[in-house]
Amino acid sequence: MQRLFRMAEIGATKNGGVCRLALSDEDRLARDLFCEWANELGCSIQFDTMGNQFATKTGINPNLPAVLIGSHLDSQPTGGKYDGALGVLAGLEVIRRLDEENITHKHSIDIVNWTNEEGSRFAPAMIGSGVYAGEFTVDYAYSRTDSAGNLFKDELARIGYLGDSKIKRDYKACFELHIEQGPILESENKKVGIVTGVLGIRWYNITVTGQEAHAGPVPMEMRKDPVKKLQAIISDLYVVADKYRPDSRLTIGSIITEPGSINTVPGKVALTLDIRHPDHKILELMNEEISFICTHKHKQVQLESIWHSPPVPFHKTCITAVEKAAQKLKIPAKKMVSGAGHDAVYLNRIAPTGMIFIPSKDGISHNESEFSSPKDIEAGVSVLYEAVKSMIG
Amino acid sequence: MQRLFRMAEIGATKNGGVCRLALSDEDRLARDLFCEWANELGCSIQFDTMGNQFATKTGINPNLPAVLIGSHLDSQPTGGKYDGALGVLAGLEVIRRLDEENITHKHSIDIVNWTNEEGSRFAPAMIGSGVYAGEFTVDYAYSRTDSAGNLFKDELARIGYLGDSKIKRDYKACFELHIEQGPILESENKKVGIVTGVLGIRWYNITVTGQEAHAGPVPMEMRKDPVKKLQAIISDLYVVADKYRPDSRLTIGSIITEPGSINTVPGKVALTLDIRHPDHKILELMNEEISFICTHKHKQVQLESIWHSPPVPFHKTCITAVEKAAQKLKIPAKKMVSGAGHDAVYLNRIAPTGMIFIPSKDGISHNESEFSSPKDIEAGVSVLYEAVKSMIG
Repeated sequence: MQRLFRMAEIGATKNGGVCRLALSDEDRLARDLFCEWANELGCSIQFDTMGNQFATKTGINPNLPAVLIGSHLDSQPTGGKYDGALGVLAGLEVIRRLDEENITHKHSIDIVNWTNEEGSRFAPAMIGSGVYAGEFTVDYAYSRTDSAGNLFKDELARIGYLGDSKIKRDYKACFELHIEQGPILESENKKVGIVTGVLGIRWYNITVTGQEAHAGPVPMEMRKDPVKKLQAIISDLYVVADKYRPDSRLTIGSIITEPGSINTVPGKVALTLDIRHPDHKILELMNEEISFICTHKHKQVQLESIWHSPPVPFHKTCITAVEKAAQKLKIPAKKMVSGAGHDAVYLNRIAPTGMIFIPSKDGISHNESEFSSPKDIEAGVSVLYEAVKSMIG
Repeated sequence: MQRLFRMAEIGATKNGGVCRLALSDEDRLARDLFCEWANELGCSIQFDTMGNQFATKTGINPNLPAVLIGSHLDSQPTGGKYDGALGVLAGLEVIRRLDEENITHKHSIDIVNWTNEEGSRFAPAMIGSGVYAGEFTVDYAYSRTDSAGNLFKDELARIGYLGDSKIKRDYKACFELHIEQGPILESENKKVGIVTGVLGIRWYNITVTGQEAHAGPVPMEMRKDPVKKLQAIISDLYVVADKYRPDSRLTIGSIITEPGSINTVPGKVALTLDIRHPDHKILELMNEEISFICTHKHKQVQLESIWHSPPVPFHKTCITAVEKAAQKLKIPAKKMVSGAGHDAVYLNRIAPTGMIFIPSKDGISHNESEFSSPKDIEAGVSVLYEAVKSMIG
């Protein structure tokens, strides 16, 4: 908890949150602090071409595959203290407790701080773990720019974390402890989530075309009003979500009217659509029904699929390790699926990976008022500790 | 037509439109050209504290109340050649034709170019005629700023049209010839609209409050999704418009989602609403029904009334003059209500006023492709000419 609060001073906002954008000066300070703490615990530090930081506590047999713990230290512009930081600092706490209890381990332990998980300064999100897992090339990542036109590579070099080599090692298991960012654990009074996988996601841009018209002189029956059509489309879309409850998610996050003037019938309305489901087949069914709504049922509507992330089932070994740890500690736990993407999703492609959730107060995150109680944090870290301990033999 | 096309060269856009924002260099050039042409026709020119330009062709008895013709020379950022300019230049054409036909007149004739009708650079619209008619104070108008922070007064002085005195005279009748900006005349194959009044207008801001949530971790049934409510509200609003057809208008011109991110359930949706009706009682009924929808039927909705312009009936004398002129010329005409506001609305408060419409191709205006045919323009100017002639005795 001390480390968590000390870390939250870096980029602290007036309202109790954190602004620690990727590759900012605050990000550098957070990285430096992480190094300092890891060194104190006897870890050696390296960082790769993406600036991903790896703190290694070497095991008795360094040739065995290591166990990885970690998450990210960057934040949203008005983010909270817990998202990401918890998962990195929990790694340090695991090392500290192993030392305290004089536990030796054959397998090495790595603690990772993935670069630019949030993606709010440099899109896309999770680019550090993405490059590590082969989803993106380093050159692609380097070419990303922020809204001020700064290059990712330049900013990484500026803060002193542009590494010159890839770091690649075998992992026996990887664990990411993270706040739930949703209301489920809290509402069911569980302390820990055993995350079995991540919802599949599809993102779309939808454009409804009408015809701009002056709000006064053009009678209703002579208009091509895209807002009227928007209303019907939104109604149809929510029906799709209702059909596949309770695991479905459907979010219309942005609606933009053009030209957006109070006395002009818009010529165009653009909206974004985010749908999610843990079952690949159902996600594809939802996709088909949305296509039908936008391309057959309604006219003058354009549907563009812009991103697809299939559902991710985490690795059985890791799920079981987390489950057993919670049982051993008698902590009320719930098997659940993560609604959000995490670095663990990419990592799972190249190494056995699992996640542990702890409750988020009111399900709120990406917000300065994000909160998880010290008690829940202790429970989460203890489960992580036991799960890691079961793997490092 | 020559004057119209010459005027359209000032601020001409690539796509055949005009960008002649109020108090810009282009506005100055347009004003200078108007002076030049008015002088050539023997008019004297004055401008008032608002930069409203008055070109006077003095009658035989200058003590009699004058007849006013006019509109505005400013345009939308991507406006057309006809909106406004037609009504000012038609005044010059009336003077020219009176000269050509050697018609003497007891009453003087004023041609006016009202400042900042469009309001797209300096809000609100129709501020020149508004100050003239006592709707706004000069100081209020002077304090308006454009998006770059330039003061109205400074810009008016910069282009050399900051007058030092009010101009106030009695008018026997005022006429504004304008493009319809709607599709009615064209669709009914009429050449001229005898405008009997202007729709009453009410403007609102509506805010639907929900709760921001991450698109993944929060199940549908635990969300407070304002977009879902938005859909229901929009549906209810269109029912109000349907109920009072064909004269009702209802426009949702702008919808803004906050924060507007693809993977966040918006915390808030803001929309604008513009309703219109020619009948005062019905407009008030619509207002009551909208209040009910927003404040009783749905919860967490805030309705703010931001502007109200009651229906305007034009003056009988002017309406009759226009009607008789069309009859005399055997031009197919239609009595109709203007859906849009015009300088004539404010003017009507202090002097007998009427308007003449001509067809707009496809009902399009505030658009570079705005078009009215030379034939229809000739018809409109001829009706204006006859109407004015009937008044100047």
